Amino acid sequence: MRPFVFINIAASLDGKISDESKKQLRISCKRDLERVDRLRADSDAIMVGIGTILADNPSLTVKSPELRELRIKGGKVENPMRIVVDSKCRTPLNAKVLDGKAKTIVAASEKANEKKIEELKAKGVEVVIFGEEKVDLKGLMNYLHTIGIRRLMVEGGGTLIRSLIAEKLVDEIYIYYGNILVGGKASPTIVDGKSFDEPIKLKLISLEKFGEGILLKSKLV
Amino acid sequence: MRPFVFINIAASLDGKISDESKKQLRISCKRDLERVDRLRADSDAIMVGIGTILADNPSLTVKSPELRELRIKGGKVENPMRIVVDSKCRTPLNAKVLDGKAKTIVAASEKANEKKIEELKAKGVEVVIFGEEKVDLKGLMNYLHTIGIRRLMVEGGGTLIRSLIAEKLVDEIYIYYGNILVGGKASPTIVDGKSFDEPIKLKLISLEKFGEGILLKSKLV
Repeated sequence: MRPFVFINIAASLDGKISDESKKQLRISCKRDLERVDRLRADSDAIMVGIGTILADNPSLTVKSPELRELRIKGGKVENPMRIVVDSKCRTPLNAKVLDGKAKTIVAASEKANEKKIEELKAKGVEVVIFGEEKVDLKGLMNYLHTIGIRRLMVEGGGTLIRSLIAEKLVDEIYIYYGNILVGGKASPTIVDGKSFDEPIKLKLISLEKFGEGILLKSKLV
Repeated sequence: MRPFVFINIAASLDGKISDESKKQLRISCKRDLERVDRLRADSDAIMVGIGTILADNPSLTVKSPELRELRIKGGKVENPMRIVVDSKCRTPLNAKVLDGKAKTIVAASEKANEKKIEELKAKGVEVVIFGEEKVDLKGLMNYLHTIGIRRLMVEGGGTLIRSLIAEKLVDEIYIYYGNILVGGKASPTIVDGKSFDEPIKLKLISLEKFGEGILLKSKLV
């Protein structure tokens, strides 16, 4: 058993999620940022890979006070849970996901440093170990389902997305394309890692002009 | 002075034009291949970079006999001119673009090997030299305008596209997105090379579901 898993990501028309400096790039327009905030508020948990933590240091919380209030009215906590897939426990102790504004799970492998695990735990983080070298994503998903996560939003980056799709752990993918070209052989893209043995076929759910860009929703088939 | 220049390219939703093996990948559906054939038939010349010649060995001719006939009725030659941007004259002597089915220009730089230039010339190719190390694309475009090229179609790859856009030599870009994800950090993308200093802003002309994928047309602004 696993949660319903969807990816939401913003990219340029050439598929880049940032430029070769890997600095965060503003791709979404205001309307898209509001859409993403609603998606977060509607999710039980938000998942990212360690690369995204190191590059962007996101807080992954719901920005709108109204949406946070609605969650509380609905009997939920203010913010969805945050899950960092981080085999070697490289999450910095001053990362925003450790700010205490939401429960945070760091999913590591047996490769993770014991001392770092203890340091993270001292910051109130739940550290779970799945897998020997890399995080066993199936095991992690099963655990998340066990603790009540039914709707999981994945916000990147390309390496985690690649692994989740390869292991058939994704139901839908939503891509907001900004009307820009970023370029760069070394720029991170929506799906990085190794290319799939065979391209992954998708089924289009919807396609629309959205704000200053394009919003595409597809189902993994 | 330069021709009207448009790029036409097929990519996966994650912006890849082939996988990391760089083998040609079938991204376009049948309807899209027909659209591309019409675009070729309506162009005065088709331009590609040497990387595309080496990876895909395309013939760049018009496939439809009807469209070729219409060109002849309109007082044109059967196929548009083929232009290979190839600084060091690496075009193989058995490349399909040297099959004599259309006039071919190889645009090289002063770095190109004299002997290879003569070998290409012996195959009926016009070799033009623009630039010291890399092809001076502005100079080449000006020359193409001089010899009557008014409508130039660029079919890739990502390195040539990057250079043309950086030098502001492109008017429009058409991207057909197949409903697939290819993945891969090392897979060639629509725009490779170095990432632009600032993302290039585009203006959407049209967006539609097209065949089995999506067709996007944008203007460079």
